[in-house]
Amino acid sequence: MPNNTNNFSLELNPNVSVDCVIFGFDLEQLTVLLIDRGEISSGFGPRLALPGNLIYDNENLDMAANRVLDELTGLKSIYLEQVGAFGDPDRIHKQSDQAWLKSIRAEPEARVITVAYYSLVPMSKYKPQASSFAKNAYWVPVSQINELAFDHYEILQAAKGKLKQKIKIQPIGFNLLPTKFTLSQLHRLYESILDKPLDKRNFRRKILKINILSSLREKQRGVPHKPSLLYEFNEEKYQELTQTGFDNFGF
Amino acid sequence: MPNNTNNFSLELNPNVSVDCVIFGFDLEQLTVLLIDRGEISSGFGPRLALPGNLIYDNENLDMAANRVLDELTGLKSIYLEQVGAFGDPDRIHKQSDQAWLKSIRAEPEARVITVAYYSLVPMSKYKPQASSFAKNAYWVPVSQINELAFDHYEILQAAKGKLKQKIKIQPIGFNLLPTKFTLSQLHRLYESILDKPLDKRNFRRKILKINILSSLREKQRGVPHKPSLLYEFNEEKYQELTQTGFDNFGF
Repeated sequence: MPNNTNNFSLELNPNVSVDCVIFGFDLEQLTVLLIDRGEISSGFGPRLALPGNLIYDNENLDMAANRVLDELTGLKSIYLEQVGAFGDPDRIHKQSDQAWLKSIRAEPEARVITVAYYSLVPMSKYKPQASSFAKNAYWVPVSQINELAFDHYEILQAAKGKLKQKIKIQPIGFNLLPTKFTLSQLHRLYESILDKPLDKRNFRRKILKINILSSLREKQRGVPHKPSLLYEFNEEKYQELTQTGFDNFGF
Repeated sequence: MPNNTNNFSLELNPNVSVDCVIFGFDLEQLTVLLIDRGEISSGFGPRLALPGNLIYDNENLDMAANRVLDELTGLKSIYLEQVGAFGDPDRIHKQSDQAWLKSIRAEPEARVITVAYYSLVPMSKYKPQASSFAKNAYWVPVSQINELAFDHYEILQAAKGKLKQKIKIQPIGFNLLPTKFTLSQLHRLYESILDKPLDKRNFRRKILKINILSSLREKQRGVPHKPSLLYEFNEEKYQELTQTGFDNFGF
């Protein structure tokens, strides 16, 4: 909770919320962090939602997104980027959502515009801990999600759209993969962001050509197949390309 | 004004506004459409602002942006894209802005989060007509702007940042230039978006290589220098590249 040391009142603004799309990767599929709203919404509609809530009048939008994510899932100090604002007048007026809002909000009927944020994090380092009105919080493969509370499905798709755009001009992976990874895992990551199969040999050639990977003198252990060579990102070159962008290599 | 045919009341939401960054190009410089707030703000601070206002509770954000732009400047049916949401708690609390807000708003002290939109339009086809609380509306070269009302200077810079990003992956110009233009004009457009000089010969080589221009058998007329060859965009190829993006050619 923010402390009340400035001139603004410590009140939730009834009209503005933030929602967070936190992407992870389980080495097979792109995942997203969702909260379970619990029994009160069951029987009516989806129990799962993006972590989100109203903003306080004394915090800016970035602060609000970080606070809400922490309050609901325990994830702290995540670098969040804006997806955009979502403001359909009907976005919170489904019956199931209204039943739930009545149980947690002072003005459940108020028009709410939400500002969505997204981030890429290494799943293995972030074990969500649900609290506040989240009954549970966990990682769900994006491809398994068909509906979510409010307009959160639409927000999720928009965030994924941003990711698809970004992958064309910036390297992606550093924040989603463990420190050491195989080229197959990186290949799967790109496939699951782009939602299409990518030719394995072409992918390897292109990704090695941009020169952001260092191959290690080390192989996978304890895998039920022929162990693959491990790689890590050359952090300096990776960060450089993340800043400046690179040639779209035509995925 | 939206007509009141649905269940929501026709009320301005006190907490959410939209602002529009409409870019043009005067064949020399990148310009932006500003409104003059008039005498009431003079003596305190900047009179110029982006066209913007509170949203109605029965319209979505895109509709609100189009309505507000039309109400203040007369520009209709412009394709607007979101820049993002701006929500610093202090963004409207400068003394000069407050004096002006008191003259036009029911709740001038309310926290306002704004959703910014931007667009590129051919200046020559859009003659702004100020109305509502805009005393005047005109195109101003972006490079001449040092301050604006509220956080509009920051919003303008963010919109320009989006433009710089976009120019790396999509062709830009079709919406900013007259139908027939010279390579020098296109070159100036790129320089003024990127804020840096670009080598003329390199630029010509790169831009011709992506094959979106058709050279016309026609030269400029009535110019005080040797007339240059005119070009037009090959609309089909241009639109194709606008959808799919192209290789960043390293500007």
